[in-house]
Amino acid sequence: MSNQLRIGIIGTGVMGSDHAHNLARGVRGASLAAIADAAVDRADALAAELGGNIATYSDGKEMIASGDVDAVIIAAPDPFHAELTGACLDAGLPVLCEKPLAPTAAEAVDVVAKQEALGRDLLTVGFMRRFDPGYRALKARLAAGADGALLMTHSVHRNVEAYPGQDSSATITNSAVHEIDVLPWLSGHDIIEVEWAAGRASSLIAERHDPQLLLMRDDAGVLHTVELQVHARYGYDVRCELVCETASVELPSVPALVEADEVIVSKDLARSAAYPADWRPRFAAAYRAELAAWVEASLAGRLPEGAATARDALRTTVVAETLVRSMNAGGARLGVPSLDDVMSGKA
Amino acid sequence: MSNQLRIGIIGTGVMGSDHAHNLARGVRGASLAAIADAAVDRADALAAELGGNIATYSDGKEMIASGDVDAVIIAAPDPFHAELTGACLDAGLPVLCEKPLAPTAAEAVDVVAKQEALGRDLLTVGFMRRFDPGYRALKARLAAGADGALLMTHSVHRNVEAYPGQDSSATITNSAVHEIDVLPWLSGHDIIEVEWAAGRASSLIAERHDPQLLLMRDDAGVLHTVELQVHARYGYDVRCELVCETASVELPSVPALVEADEVIVSKDLARSAAYPADWRPRFAAAYRAELAAWVEASLAGRLPEGAATARDALRTTVVAETLVRSMNAGGARLGVPSLDDVMSGKA
Amino acid sequence: MSNQLRIGIIGTGVMGSDHAHNLARGVRGASLAAIADAAVDRADALAAELGGNIATYSDGKEMIASGDVDAVIIAAPDPFHAELTGACLDAGLPVLCEKPLAPTAAEAVDVVAKQEALGRDLLTVGFMRRFDPGYRALKARLAAGADGALLMTHSVHRNVEAYPGQDSSATITNSAVHEIDVLPWLSGHDIIEVEWAAGRASSLIAERHDPQLLLMRDDAGVLHTVELQVHARYGYDVRCELVCETASVELPSVPALVEADEVIVSKDLARSAAYPADWRPRFAAAYRAELAAWVEASLAGRLPEGAATARDALRTTVVAETLVRSMNAGGARLGVPSLDDVMSGKA
Amino acid sequence: MSNQLRIGIIGTGVMGSDHAHNLARGVRGASLAAIADAAVDRADALAAELGGNIATYSDGKEMIASGDVDAVIIAAPDPFHAELTGACLDAGLPVLCEKPLAPTAAEAVDVVAKQEALGRDLLTVGFMRRFDPGYRALKARLAAGADGALLMTHSVHRNVEAYPGQDSSATITNSAVHEIDVLPWLSGHDIIEVEWAAGRASSLIAERHDPQLLLMRDDAGVLHTVELQVHARYGYDVRCELVCETASVELPSVPALVEADEVIVSKDLARSAAYPADWRPRFAAAYRAELAAWVEASLAGRLPEGAATARDALRTTVVAETLVRSMNAGGARLGVPSLDDVMSGKA
Repeated sequence: MSNQLRIGIIGTGVMGSDHAHNLARGVRGASLAAIADAAVDRADALAAELGGNIATYSDGKEMIASGDVDAVIIAAPDPFHAELTGACLDAGLPVLCEKPLAPTAAEAVDVVAKQEALGRDLLTVGFMRRFDPGYRALKARLAAGADGALLMTHSVHRNVEAYPGQDSSATITNSAVHEIDVLPWLSGHDIIEVEWAAGRASSLIAERHDPQLLLMRDDAGVLHTVELQVHARYGYDVRCELVCETASVELPSVPALVEADEVIVSKDLARSAAYPADWRPRFAAAYRAELAAWVEASLAGRLPEGAATARDALRTTVVAETLVRSMNAGGARLGVPSLDDVMSGKA
Repeated sequence: MSNQLRIGIIGTGVMGSDHAHNLARGVRGASLAAIADAAVDRADALAAELGGNIATYSDGKEMIASGDVDAVIIAAPDPFHAELTGACLDAGLPVLCEKPLAPTAAEAVDVVAKQEALGRDLLTVGFMRRFDPGYRALKARLAAGADGALLMTHSVHRNVEAYPGQDSSATITNSAVHEIDVLPWLSGHDIIEVEWAAGRASSLIAERHDPQLLLMRDDAGVLHTVELQVHARYGYDVRCELVCETASVELPSVPALVEADEVIVSKDLARSAAYPADWRPRFAAAYRAELAAWVEASLAGRLPEGAATARDALRTTVVAETLVRSMNAGGARLGVPSLDDVMSGKA
Repeated sequence: MSNQLRIGIIGTGVMGSDHAHNLARGVRGASLAAIADAAVDRADALAAELGGNIATYSDGKEMIASGDVDAVIIAAPDPFHAELTGACLDAGLPVLCEKPLAPTAAEAVDVVAKQEALGRDLLTVGFMRRFDPGYRALKARLAAGADGALLMTHSVHRNVEAYPGQDSSATITNSAVHEIDVLPWLSGHDIIEVEWAAGRASSLIAERHDPQLLLMRDDAGVLHTVELQVHARYGYDVRCELVCETASVELPSVPALVEADEVIVSKDLARSAAYPADWRPRFAAAYRAELAAWVEASLAGRLPEGAATARDALRTTVVAETLVRSMNAGGARLGVPSLDDVMSGKA
Repeated sequence: MSNQLRIGIIGTGVMGSDHAHNLARGVRGASLAAIADAAVDRADALAAELGGNIATYSDGKEMIASGDVDAVIIAAPDPFHAELTGACLDAGLPVLCEKPLAPTAAEAVDVVAKQEALGRDLLTVGFMRRFDPGYRALKARLAAGADGALLMTHSVHRNVEAYPGQDSSATITNSAVHEIDVLPWLSGHDIIEVEWAAGRASSLIAERHDPQLLLMRDDAGVLHTVELQVHARYGYDVRCELVCETASVELPSVPALVEADEVIVSKDLARSAAYPADWRPRFAAAYRAELAAWVEASLAGRLPEGAATARDALRTTVVAETLVRSMNAGGARLGVPSLDDVMSGKA
């Protein structure tokens, strides 16, 4: 394997396309080398859109066998996951398989058995909440231990609109699997007992139980409640609260907090959120976006749109210097010289 | 210029190092080709830490002239900005210069004149707030126009601890410049009049006015208030509110909202924040982090730490299937089979 | 019954004392006429503290029979509730009985039977959440119907510290009864099925299940989840969320919102809270407090502490007039005349 | 003066009527004895609406001289304030005069002089923010001193809609006077210097400066900024932030927090709000409302609307007992007996 990981993606639906764009925006050590889709024109179109040197295939297994990729992302339809994953394992390639590993436990068993027979770990499944800054902050807080033992958790998972043609089981196997994965990851204990409940169903989506309530108990005795609603209309909303012995720790309920590594802590008669200590966490996204925009524009031989030009920066300096003059003049109200006057030496 | 932009960074302080790390984490189309620092051992150490093939220089101008870099980031001490920027312009290289362009307007004038004499735009100044998702959301909201004209703005900019050895002028020229840059960028109008004020100063930092209050008026008549506090102790805090004719639009006051493209809108007798319509904006950071971790681990021949393994995914499937059985059994409380039993076909 | 309702209170514990103080602070149409407590010295002390003309009794039933009270508040220990309530019904007096009506359903049945045999309604039980502005706002929102049918509710009820000597049943019969009362009041439907659950218990309070989870289903099919925690340590916290077909409506999670008639509405891709249309709801409490303080001070022949005096009001007028002068002078910075100069006609 | 303060109100506009209703709802030690209005039919109508024994007058001064009132609230039009206040002082009656004391400082001077010549304090001016739980919590926090000295304050005061026919001066003399009163009350220092500013004005209200910005400096050097907007459209919004040496303390920005004695504290890298320690502060308003509703209903010979009846309480007990049975049965799902069965002894 070269120092740069050549990645092949199978599937060009929403997830395959998103992974491809993320790779194209730059991931350290990775290059997008190939895209496979049974509809090869879709693979071709995506490769063309992303630019660069990307091979395309109509057959994912052919791509796996080509020797042109060092690792594979599987975002094909669910029924193909097990077979494609198996092919990757056979080829000895690291594979990131979108969830689910297989549509049923029976099929998943075969994949797990094959993986475990290999003697080396090659298979990762795309339960991405484990990488969400919010869930990671919850886990870090639990690990720190200062709030006492975890006793109970409450989760809410609501989608705006149900996928047509699915049934109540799909709510569990498609949506709730994220909580089923991430809650034991948070608590560090396997789920050993479950119970399903539902009550009055929304009249807006006739053919299924919505909302549903799941109760799960893990082997530390922690009780997890999960409310699922696939047709909640109001917005996409994911909530998670950890009830500990001396504190409650939650993902923020303000929707915009979605990408922040922030939790709301209720402890010691206060409900609080943390401030950063300096500008770096506050503006980390800005610095990354600035850099990306500048590189893209420089390659195109122009300046990044909306960025500060030399003239902008000069104007800022002139205003700042005028403010300092106001300060030195006891707070006088001062006009700011025009840039023309500044450039011509008049001001 | 090749399809990959070879970037050289001058300066290995906080900003130079952060830019270098951001490039190393992957920016589409960019590679970090060289690092320069008068203390070349610092440049060497940073290059070694980041890995890959990075040249080092003790002299930034030598790097600029080397032909090994296609574009330059200047993060050297402020007094060298103008000279190094000039060298880049002479060499015809795109340059991202950390603010300030120069310590004084007089020096900045020379840089601007040189840039403008070139006939092509090469120079960008690192006022990164223009790329902050929050400020961009404010600007987009203003541009949409639904809130009427912008009438007044209120900003707060507070640092935890003052840099020693600076004076009250530095509060303006080092800190307030961010607001001086971003406020006219938001309003689309130049600042034409300013006034400085300060009142009671903190006893915790004897040698300067802290906090300060800046009043600035732009050429549309919009009045901008900016409170600066460099020794606020409680946290790093940046606030910005746009007072429009029919609404007030603010950056969120919850500190964790820092990286979100979210604003708080007060309008029509409600104060509100937006929900996403689906999971993609909610978990965009998670997907990116997942991909980065998976690539890094695959290059190292292991699985990403904490990611869902095949066994984890199988367990999730087993729990989901047990929940579906509970649903089909009217909500019965059911034990979850052990993975051993599942793998051995007993369950 | 006179135009003024003469009220007798039985019991001088926390609740009896609070009711007495509330009456003493003034309730339209009511006067506190008598206090009974088996420890009559406690009744005497409370009567003395409150001032006015309040009779005391060592025997609540004697008070009920005295002819000196028109209505009775029962805040005696729980085992006496049924008997005292019965005595009030026998005497034909309106009675507000603190919850519970009786320690067991069997005893409560007798009270209900006696009340219903009377032919007139005299008995109210003190489930005060029905009068909480927050719960009332939830109910009003439901009644308005714009959010579609109620589908599910989630409640949390946490106390800081468990009462010693109680067991897990008391968590339900003492604490959860508030939710058991208020949830069907909100939904308008009786609870017809219940299920209890608990998981890992706090190690900080050994002798009971804590937290507990209650599932209740009402006769419209609505599923209600209630988490109870009597030893939550972090704060007193009551939450309630109504999941409707097109919106979720919650009591605010910010603890201070406790007395406001405000709910958080998630609907149409936004999470929002309402603004008042003018100052009257915003400052209603201030006006009431002002009035109470002024009456108390006037009776004592002094001014209310901290209220604005004539001199304060004059100073305010002088500042306001100076601001108007600044406005008329284009924003000039002006000194404010001293009150001495103003009073002596110099300014 | 009797133990009960007989209060007369002059003026039946919004403020006079609100004061009258507040008194009628019950204020300890007070009774509403008389109402005066030049339009005596309005006084009659208000007295009739409130019930009880309330005299009416067409002439406030006649009421003052009548001997039938012990204290007077002046809510007549502003031009009459000084004269009526003077009459009260002459009569030796405590007086609560709505702001302003007089339309101009010159007239106010006379009232102050008369008050001060009296030798006893009789006059209070209705700057009710001093009694607002939020502002009081700010003041208490400042007084506690743990945040270091107060350095600067920021206030916002926005109304939905401007009163027609007023000018820019009225924004100061009618609206800003509240901040002009309450800010020095908070800081404990008189305002000694002011400056007015305005920028772009709303096109929705042509005839005046809106918004305005006021800068005020007190004799401790504290700088106060106040933004006034009388035609803000979006909602009634009052904000106040105290910038101290080690913390920032604010009124909550969530509008519903309006009546709570709560502040948001930014300190030690966290932004936090307080939880109550038990249910009493949380449900204080509920208890008061319950009591008021019960008294009113009892006087009318009925139960308070929506209150828990005996049957409600019995049902609650039955549900609670069924939950305890579920607990004792290991969490069994149990039907709740019907009340009929319970009452008839079948369950």
